[in-house]
Amino acid sequence: MLHDPNHIYIFDTTLRDGEQVPGCQLSTSEKIEIAKELEALGVDVIEAGFPVSSPGDFQSVVEISKAVKNPIVCALTRAHKGDIDSAVASLQYAKHPRIHTGIGASDMHIRHKFNSTREEILERAVTAVKYAKGFVEDIEFYAEDAGRADIEYLAKMIEAVIAAGATVVNIPDTNGYCLPDQYGSKIRFLKENVKNIDQAIISVHCHNDLGLATANSVSGLQNGARQIEGTINGIGERAGNTSIEEVVMILKTHQSLNLNIDHINTKAFYELSRMVSTQMRMPVQPNKAIVGSNAFAHSSGIHQDGFLKNRENYEIIKPEDVGFPSASIVLTARSGRHALRFHLERLGHQLSKTELDETYKRFLTLADSKLDLNDDDLLGLITVASAR
Amino acid sequence: MLHDPNHIYIFDTTLRDGEQVPGCQLSTSEKIEIAKELEALGVDVIEAGFPVSSPGDFQSVVEISKAVKNPIVCALTRAHKGDIDSAVASLQYAKHPRIHTGIGASDMHIRHKFNSTREEILERAVTAVKYAKGFVEDIEFYAEDAGRADIEYLAKMIEAVIAAGATVVNIPDTNGYCLPDQYGSKIRFLKENVKNIDQAIISVHCHNDLGLATANSVSGLQNGARQIEGTINGIGERAGNTSIEEVVMILKTHQSLNLNIDHINTKAFYELSRMVSTQMRMPVQPNKAIVGSNAFAHSSGIHQDGFLKNRENYEIIKPEDVGFPSASIVLTARSGRHALRFHLERLGHQLSKTELDETYKRFLTLADSKLDLNDDDLLGLITVASAR
Repeated sequence: MLHDPNHIYIFDTTLRDGEQVPGCQLSTSEKIEIAKELEALGVDVIEAGFPVSSPGDFQSVVEISKAVKNPIVCALTRAHKGDIDSAVASLQYAKHPRIHTGIGASDMHIRHKFNSTREEILERAVTAVKYAKGFVEDIEFYAEDAGRADIEYLAKMIEAVIAAGATVVNIPDTNGYCLPDQYGSKIRFLKENVKNIDQAIISVHCHNDLGLATANSVSGLQNGARQIEGTINGIGERAGNTSIEEVVMILKTHQSLNLNIDHINTKAFYELSRMVSTQMRMPVQPNKAIVGSNAFAHSSGIHQDGFLKNRENYEIIKPEDVGFPSASIVLTARSGRHALRFHLERLGHQLSKTELDETYKRFLTLADSKLDLNDDDLLGLITVASAR
Repeated sequence: MLHDPNHIYIFDTTLRDGEQVPGCQLSTSEKIEIAKELEALGVDVIEAGFPVSSPGDFQSVVEISKAVKNPIVCALTRAHKGDIDSAVASLQYAKHPRIHTGIGASDMHIRHKFNSTREEILERAVTAVKYAKGFVEDIEFYAEDAGRADIEYLAKMIEAVIAAGATVVNIPDTNGYCLPDQYGSKIRFLKENVKNIDQAIISVHCHNDLGLATANSVSGLQNGARQIEGTINGIGERAGNTSIEEVVMILKTHQSLNLNIDHINTKAFYELSRMVSTQMRMPVQPNKAIVGSNAFAHSSGIHQDGFLKNRENYEIIKPEDVGFPSASIVLTARSGRHALRFHLERLGHQLSKTELDETYKRFLTLADSKLDLNDDDLLGLITVASAR
């Protein structure tokens, strides 16, 4: 398969793995709106749904296929003919269709979910890929619960599905169990031990049960994966999926990794985050990395002082690079004189050192008793100072 | 210093680094309530405030010192005599007092924040530690922005402050810049190159600007650190601090790391998370790892089916281990027959296969048009089925 070896493919599953969350279900028209914004963001793949799961989901894949032009549109299936038939039908209008099929790869899933054997599951995986390949060229295979799978068996399964026609092989840490070094080692092992691995792209799909989805995904990319699957705001079942905005900004901040995401219009993240949060009724906590409302807010005195001297003291990403309205210096009881002066000057008042010292004392008393100080509060402090 | 080499010290800074966030300021009585719950959780250290910053913060350190018995109570200072004097006074009632002093270690901070030189900053660091040591035995030193500091200079600074009496050396990734392997390598370098490092505990203090605080902290522990600093719910300036609940549950889930946190009463996490969220007015997003409201909610058909066959298919932490009310199977348009049957049986209805198939079709139509299905909705589906 021909591709830029440094290009990182961004596979968005907000509308599939994200949407299957309690309370997050969207109408088809809402999904189309988000899909168009994902296209504007520049993602390479939009996973649009799981067509066999419900008539509404089927129809959404149809309509998203019509609505977007550049990204690959992907439909999820289990390793069942009926699922694949449904996916094929739903993708009939897609300019770049992809079928995403797969089956459990861990012994836990093989025994306790499928009540089956390694040999039988491998056979079902290959059969599904071959069947799907009869309809669509671009086939992604997922080895569910790969994070807990026996690595030799996993390698055998991956080799077999690539031979059967898979163009992308997805190694999910379905339960969010792995540590970053463990997950990276699995990807490295596959890269080094699966004979035909260069005929497919390795994809990372991580879950956040232990808070490690982002780190695991980056570790996978450092070890040879070239596609990353995730959602906007990290939404998804349980503790969610990898946050696409976090991985993209890590790769952008750490240019030395030489992993190329230049095609992503990062300035679109903030608005898209708000749209997904609103439509899916999934609040983003203020301290969420990259897109939380406090992500660029400096409040302690030490930090505000350093920030005002040189913003790079406490800022590694420019808020405008992710479309964030602006960095803010918030005044609280932990703020210092430098931040207070910054705001007083913004309001048109230049104070002498003595005046500032006196105003600062009154400011601390007020700030200890009041959570959010507004401009009127500050002007009130000044008036007193001027009157003395 | 004598200590169990596998014991991981949990240093909670919810009331200091967490509390300095816009809108999060607490009254002294609220802080005492949280401090007592942190003691019940079993944390080793409570950072209670930054006493010189405001009279209210000073008083809180005094009152927390009186209120708790077992944990070390820690007060933050800059490398200034005035700050240290204030901290000493605030800790007068602490059974186990600690002073946490420090200064910037990166060239960025040395030049652009302190307008100084490496030599002068090193001298100020040593002077501060020696001065604090005159009052309190347990001195923690922080090398601010260590994540971006020259590693040789950092090692020299750490060696000097240990020689001056520091019992704990904190290596903060102040701006949340590092990747896990980079941060781990820094800790490893200090462990291997600072001659007197065995006389102090290395502490990790990470920020979440790139979503990597948890992974960086664990990487630090894997490479020789033995204290981890963080907050409940990961609250803190900008994108917040490391989430203590995430790191603790990683160490508990990955017993092979042999990092001991047996003294932490993990069942207290859920209630404490809710208390901190409510008192500090900082919502926890539903997909937050460990303590989010959806953290243990299974909703897709594939996952629900696997979960009902054997919960370990999709569950690596038992919800009850973190005090979570219970795992839940939520019915949505992405649910399968198995989940529907589970709920119908819970409501006292055993359906034949044909009845279930028919009910499931109606269920999907209803679920496509309605977000949350309640028991009455399900009973409505049944009534129709029985009437046919």
